[in-house]
Amino acid sequence: MASTDKPDPEAATKSEVSPLPPPPPKRVDYFAIDVGLRVLLFAATLTALVVMSTAKQTELASVPGSPVRVPVKAKFNHSPAFIYFVAALSVACLYSIITTLASLGVIAKPTYATTFLLYYVFWDVLMLGIVAAATGAAGGVAYIGLRGNKHTGWVKVCPVYDKFCRHLGSSIPIALFASVLLVLLIMLSVFSLHSRIRE
Amino acid sequence: MASTDKPDPEAATKSEVSPLPPPPPKRVDYFAIDVGLRVLLFAATLTALVVMSTAKQTELASVPGSPVRVPVKAKFNHSPAFIYFVAALSVACLYSIITTLASLGVIAKPTYATTFLLYYVFWDVLMLGIVAAATGAAGGVAYIGLRGNKHTGWVKVCPVYDKFCRHLGSSIPIALFASVLLVLLIMLSVFSLHSRIRE
Repeated sequence: MASTDKPDPEAATKSEVSPLPPPPPKRVDYFAIDVGLRVLLFAATLTALVVMSTAKQTELASVPGSPVRVPVKAKFNHSPAFIYFVAALSVACLYSIITTLASLGVIAKPTYATTFLLYYVFWDVLMLGIVAAATGAAGGVAYIGLRGNKHTGWVKVCPVYDKFCRHLGSSIPIALFASVLLVLLIMLSVFSLHSRIRE
Repeated sequence: MASTDKPDPEAATKSEVSPLPPPPPKRVDYFAIDVGLRVLLFAATLTALVVMSTAKQTELASVPGSPVRVPVKAKFNHSPAFIYFVAALSVACLYSIITTLASLGVIAKPTYATTFLLYYVFWDVLMLGIVAAATGAAGGVAYIGLRGNKHTGWVKVCPVYDKFCRHLGSSIPIALFASVLLVLLIMLSVFSLHSRIRE
């Protein structure tokens, strides 16, 4: 804003005192960030997976037309949406392990770095689609459990299965975080590819 | 496989007869494919949006403890998942119009093509996340409507609201197709970026 085109005599004197060549352009090591994000993705998917798998609760429920109360169990595999959620997170967890190792391999031997970046984007995009859809499906079903739907007569189940719902309420936001991580990973890979064009 | 290093006398004669320079490497115009896919994305999101918005059905439902039957309406805005679905598709539809025009602009004046490719991937990835999550949420809720859930006591509604469910069953696969188109668009942009590195 306040720059002038006049040469600064002080700066000129300084450069004469220390005639160092300009430093080479600093190259950020994107693969180090990549590995960090992938380790974080592994942690997120594993946490969401464990929290969801351990969401089990047994409560006494009244049978209509009878005073007897029977124990009724709530488990994630009682809903197809939650089964898909667990399957998608398992795939993403396994994928994060494989790609972390691959990224470490690229750091050790960066010959095929550009090709790896291309493959990373292709697979990361597929993973993002799977994880985002699974998070949406689980979230949609969990919301019915929390609030019910008076139009269709679907009752809330969370007032009874409180512990089960707390597990869901922790697992789904973590899966959302994993989706955000995948978006960041794709952007990082594409930015790396883009920066290589200018080199 | 069976190539030899010896010069072929016939080929040498031919090249003397027609000493044409080798043709320049054929460059596929990726932006033309890009525009085509974006027009298809616009068509898919608009169709899914119209089919979902017009899903209205009124049926007579019996009131418990009374012989009177009252008309009960089914609309997409009776479920938060379907409201999110319509909102996400609206955003994707608007986005497809804007980016189609931008792609046509890049074809007319390809100065900033590389920068546009970078921005396209960033925004396409965000759109993919939104549309995939919306498709998952709507699909998860629609599946409960179709099959019910005996564990939670949620009843099927599709045997009564058959026309409404047919609309859902058309709209959700079209939205899934839109997600696949977004995946293809991202891959195309990244492939274009990658091909520019070798130039």
